[in-house]
Amino acid sequence: MRVHSPLQIVNAVSTLLRNLKKDIRVGIIGGTGYTGAELLRLLAVHPNVRVEVITSRAEAGTRVSDIFPNLDGYQSLRFEEPLEESFKGCDVIFCATPNGVAMQHAQAVLESGAIFIDLAADFRLLDAGEWEQWYGQPHAKPELLDKAVYGLPEVFRTTIAQAKLVANPGCYPTASLLGLYPALAAGCINEATIVIDAKSGVTGAGRGANVATLFSEVSDSFKAYGASGHRHHPEISQIAGQISTQGQRPTITFIPHLVPMLRGIHATIYCDLTDPSMPIEDVHALYQTRYAEEAFVDVLPLSMHPETRSVKASNMCRIGVHKAVGSNKLVVLSVIDNLTKGAAGQAIQNMNLCLGLSETTGLLAPATLP
Amino acid sequence: MRVHSPLQIVNAVSTLLRNLKKDIRVGIIGGTGYTGAELLRLLAVHPNVRVEVITSRAEAGTRVSDIFPNLDGYQSLRFEEPLEESFKGCDVIFCATPNGVAMQHAQAVLESGAIFIDLAADFRLLDAGEWEQWYGQPHAKPELLDKAVYGLPEVFRTTIAQAKLVANPGCYPTASLLGLYPALAAGCINEATIVIDAKSGVTGAGRGANVATLFSEVSDSFKAYGASGHRHHPEISQIAGQISTQGQRPTITFIPHLVPMLRGIHATIYCDLTDPSMPIEDVHALYQTRYAEEAFVDVLPLSMHPETRSVKASNMCRIGVHKAVGSNKLVVLSVIDNLTKGAAGQAIQNMNLCLGLSETTGLLAPATLP
Amino acid sequence: MRVHSPLQIVNAVSTLLRNLKKDIRVGIIGGTGYTGAELLRLLAVHPNVRVEVITSRAEAGTRVSDIFPNLDGYQSLRFEEPLEESFKGCDVIFCATPNGVAMQHAQAVLESGAIFIDLAADFRLLDAGEWEQWYGQPHAKPELLDKAVYGLPEVFRTTIAQAKLVANPGCYPTASLLGLYPALAAGCINEATIVIDAKSGVTGAGRGANVATLFSEVSDSFKAYGASGHRHHPEISQIAGQISTQGQRPTITFIPHLVPMLRGIHATIYCDLTDPSMPIEDVHALYQTRYAEEAFVDVLPLSMHPETRSVKASNMCRIGVHKAVGSNKLVVLSVIDNLTKGAAGQAIQNMNLCLGLSETTGLLAPATLP
Amino acid sequence: MRVHSPLQIVNAVSTLLRNLKKDIRVGIIGGTGYTGAELLRLLAVHPNVRVEVITSRAEAGTRVSDIFPNLDGYQSLRFEEPLEESFKGCDVIFCATPNGVAMQHAQAVLESGAIFIDLAADFRLLDAGEWEQWYGQPHAKPELLDKAVYGLPEVFRTTIAQAKLVANPGCYPTASLLGLYPALAAGCINEATIVIDAKSGVTGAGRGANVATLFSEVSDSFKAYGASGHRHHPEISQIAGQISTQGQRPTITFIPHLVPMLRGIHATIYCDLTDPSMPIEDVHALYQTRYAEEAFVDVLPLSMHPETRSVKASNMCRIGVHKAVGSNKLVVLSVIDNLTKGAAGQAIQNMNLCLGLSETTGLLAPATLP
Repeated sequence: MRVHSPLQIVNAVSTLLRNLKKDIRVGIIGGTGYTGAELLRLLAVHPNVRVEVITSRAEAGTRVSDIFPNLDGYQSLRFEEPLEESFKGCDVIFCATPNGVAMQHAQAVLESGAIFIDLAADFRLLDAGEWEQWYGQPHAKPELLDKAVYGLPEVFRTTIAQAKLVANPGCYPTASLLGLYPALAAGCINEATIVIDAKSGVTGAGRGANVATLFSEVSDSFKAYGASGHRHHPEISQIAGQISTQGQRPTITFIPHLVPMLRGIHATIYCDLTDPSMPIEDVHALYQTRYAEEAFVDVLPLSMHPETRSVKASNMCRIGVHKAVGSNKLVVLSVIDNLTKGAAGQAIQNMNLCLGLSETTGLLAPATLP
Repeated sequence: MRVHSPLQIVNAVSTLLRNLKKDIRVGIIGGTGYTGAELLRLLAVHPNVRVEVITSRAEAGTRVSDIFPNLDGYQSLRFEEPLEESFKGCDVIFCATPNGVAMQHAQAVLESGAIFIDLAADFRLLDAGEWEQWYGQPHAKPELLDKAVYGLPEVFRTTIAQAKLVANPGCYPTASLLGLYPALAAGCINEATIVIDAKSGVTGAGRGANVATLFSEVSDSFKAYGASGHRHHPEISQIAGQISTQGQRPTITFIPHLVPMLRGIHATIYCDLTDPSMPIEDVHALYQTRYAEEAFVDVLPLSMHPETRSVKASNMCRIGVHKAVGSNKLVVLSVIDNLTKGAAGQAIQNMNLCLGLSETTGLLAPATLP
Repeated sequence: MRVHSPLQIVNAVSTLLRNLKKDIRVGIIGGTGYTGAELLRLLAVHPNVRVEVITSRAEAGTRVSDIFPNLDGYQSLRFEEPLEESFKGCDVIFCATPNGVAMQHAQAVLESGAIFIDLAADFRLLDAGEWEQWYGQPHAKPELLDKAVYGLPEVFRTTIAQAKLVANPGCYPTASLLGLYPALAAGCINEATIVIDAKSGVTGAGRGANVATLFSEVSDSFKAYGASGHRHHPEISQIAGQISTQGQRPTITFIPHLVPMLRGIHATIYCDLTDPSMPIEDVHALYQTRYAEEAFVDVLPLSMHPETRSVKASNMCRIGVHKAVGSNKLVVLSVIDNLTKGAAGQAIQNMNLCLGLSETTGLLAPATLP
Repeated sequence: MRVHSPLQIVNAVSTLLRNLKKDIRVGIIGGTGYTGAELLRLLAVHPNVRVEVITSRAEAGTRVSDIFPNLDGYQSLRFEEPLEESFKGCDVIFCATPNGVAMQHAQAVLESGAIFIDLAADFRLLDAGEWEQWYGQPHAKPELLDKAVYGLPEVFRTTIAQAKLVANPGCYPTASLLGLYPALAAGCINEATIVIDAKSGVTGAGRGANVATLFSEVSDSFKAYGASGHRHHPEISQIAGQISTQGQRPTITFIPHLVPMLRGIHATIYCDLTDPSMPIEDVHALYQTRYAEEAFVDVLPLSMHPETRSVKASNMCRIGVHKAVGSNKLVVLSVIDNLTKGAAGQAIQNMNLCLGLSETTGLLAPATLP
């Protein structure tokens, strides 16, 4: 090997920097689910972050890599009991637990000065009563609800950058709201006509032992579920109402479906254009303009259809815009990876924003295809 | 073994009958695709039918079971060149070719006295001009279009029983129209608001060598396609217009999607109820009443979601009826197997009707689950 | 419709017979797993059988079709508590429970005069000590072990026809033993060199709630398991020893693997030919001769590879025979559907034999492909 | 945002470096297949590389991201006709074409001074006659065969670092040879007894339009193929012979199988231990020692089974070592991603070595799981 080649110098500096830069200490509460796994996968190559602690009541003592064998060689931590002192000294805490747990931890974390990013739903709805109705339990910290910022950077970037408590959006809301945002903000659609037909990969159902999500129950099949009401519905409505120029929540029909694939959300959004004669090219231009500066939203050329595999394991959202044949409907197709842009990737994007890092740090790898 | 037990007598009679009954001679034009394979699979256990000839220009000389190894031991025929004399003596001809081929054969078959059932689209649209617009080729036999009967038995049973030329419905139209039929016929929905978000397994795309349907292109992914217009749209509109009490085609938005599974169609149908205060229980009752006598339509109890696997490899259609939360939408979920009720099974159902056999003959095996 | 056509007469007789023939009363103990579901699916079209009762402690009161929606319209039974009187009057009892349950019921069933067919492993090993070592529990009825007949009809047909207690073979043993039988019986292989590399679809792991068999854990992946010892190993060895001309158990290396598919076993069997110069054509002829009269074993032409889909949902076993390149190894490829020939289908084949019915009754539908 | 924080400085330097470092110019011949796609995906985040040109005769003029939509936003190149001047100025040329093409380009590339890395098989076999026998065409450049270095860094690292012409190994050989290497090099196995039962995901079959690899042909099924001889067999034998302490090629039985998954190779290797009493712990220690310094080989703890998903989209090989029950067989389980360590990842690893870069540059992202 030649000595002192430019490449070697660059590599040496790069290694030095890599070691120096790992100065943000991260803790993860509840890391045995798929969003926890995705956080660990992405943070393993984040240049500024060191995961210090990861907790799980059920798996305390188990090596992380025994549960997620892809992390063998990357992560030598063991799961710990979730004790308050565990997180002392952390700069950022991610909470990847079932709904209802983050609200138990948020106050203490905020008092410690750390940033708290909840990947569950505890702080997504502004109204505690509405939360309790949909999540079937009392809300332990209603007084924190208006301190939480909804972590959809493409809509609320400035506020997120100042936030200490981030409510990371749900997977369906992320795909749906990014698909609706330009049209809603422009006021060009009839808000009483919105239908969101949403489809999710199976990881969206979590890693719990459950007959309904066994391979032998969902493989080679397709179904709708939750047609009688899904928790992501009020979340979509609330944020859509904030975006809307009309000052109220739109009327939204939302039906989720289960696809026999690991990762991916595909939202097919139908709505009437206010002006039926508006050319689809103008709608498309409106979408392109809105997202022109966004690193993680890709508006496809007209007439193209996004595939979920084109965003697999990446933080990208891809959007296609169509005018239906034989009707006045605008049809928006929006795809994300439910574990990345729909959960852990967006959480890291929010962390980057909160810390003043470049928003894309650690999130730039292209999707895995095929 | 006991001699002359009742079971043995029954078995002996049964065997005798099985041999005697195989007196309907069937020919299949173009049997190398998946609808051809499904015809052969189902006809292998049809008690009254003997497949006499099966043609394929490309595979002439090849044993059927070399292409479809499940038929080894069931079907010893070889594919033949499609010559007119091949079909001499057949009582029923199924045409399982690409669009545009059946119209070349129909006249000759009808003149021979045989029943002609086309599984492609050649005779589905009443208007030759509309056909040519969607299928991109001139129609060779427009004069036969009004002789053809649309083979959806649940709607057109009586006419089918008299027919000599049956246009077997498309897979999307079958799922969509069975989902719409009771509501349309009752006049309880706003026909200007119909959205059909349809999803299909990959066998729907056929058995042609095609990069777009390689395992490595579609597995573990999901996408919409044909958002700029799909050939099944005018077919659905035309028949919906015939069912409608309003004497015209409804306004339908139709978007198909590709699911990484082998078989199955799931149509999610959205529309406004004419009377927003109509209880969903009444809609449900209307569906149950309409299909009460149907062997192949199963209306699920309220609040249930049909799964495509519940109809896999069977001729059943299962339907769930829901009222959306937060809107006035009626949501109908309709599932079939695209190769069975959506193609070969329905074709055999039509054949049974045309021949005066019991409509369910050879079609009663339950779906394969898991 | 013509009156009194031959077809109508045939149909009328057929319907009459169908009703008359349902005179064998069947009970199923433990029907909530996949082998129970497969029994129900197959028995629904068995011309001589009526399922009278099906039990499940956990699901007592639930409609069978709520768990297996493919059976809606075919099976109106509800699961019952497994009480002894439940099975009064049954002619045949299938036991589709976890290991260790059948042995609690066997004595009572046999005393009632019914035939008892156990789909679990309770009566497969002749030696109670060996059973206890592999299954980790004491054997409750060692005195019944030598009354049980191993239900592999291609090897033990005559004995099965006299049996009252049938130990239905495991899925791996069925595929492996059918692949080994002709060579072992002919004495043409070196029995110290047998390697069975076996692969199974995920339904083989059962329907229990289990993280390890979630869709999100096994889809799009492949692994070996149980390399440190699998319970089907002693079962294969014991029966192989009975077949062997050398009067002792062969030395067998057996490693199972998990394939991301629903159904299917593929056993790849490697062994040295005793006479390295024996032409593969002679081995092939030996396989063809051995299975010439078998309805459910199909020996493929030389150089062909069986696919599991070619036996999906059918009772068929397909076998390919190869000589390896660059070595003296005989390579046998053997495929079955683990739920059909590997469980419920074979159990019905055994029932047919025990009752003096034609062995293939109710089992003749070809595999579902694609 | 704070001004001049340490993080900001680090980020600024990092960005600067990232721009500066992109000084290695890469060309790709034949980039429309899956190995081409994987090269582009990995090189998109390689800190030192700029892809300058990518060719395809069939797709000249098409944007790369139209074929591989995951690269939209990462790669703005269009495919070009493969002209010799296209590659002027490139430092490294990857050839990701069908077999027989690289040999047409190698001489010119080498004369230009660039490094040539062939991902196909043109330079893998030392003997032109053997190559011609297996690949069915004459070899155009036999005089280059002994200039090519077999690019398996764990075995041939030093030689690769000096090489100008690298024959990148096949996917099956990579998994098989890494699984065999420690045992072969230690001389502790009987080389006449090696059986490799190998399984591959479907991307291994390429991106050509082919009925046999349609989703509808391979999904939910499993099969062996090439049992009568596979081209990777002589490649494995040749290299195994170079590793062996016995100075000759071992006797290897090699049977490949097709798994319904996108990516992954699983090699299950069986062989007799020379000393039957050798404890498996000693074999395991031997594997651990051999690979102790390897970044891309992970020897699992005893009794564990590697899963292909644990290496998905990563350059890692994971190995498990077992002693079979009831026989003297050593069983080695070795998994890789066929497109990464089995093709494009290893090619980049080789490029890094040839250029004096750190071997792991651009290859450190953990596997995507789930």
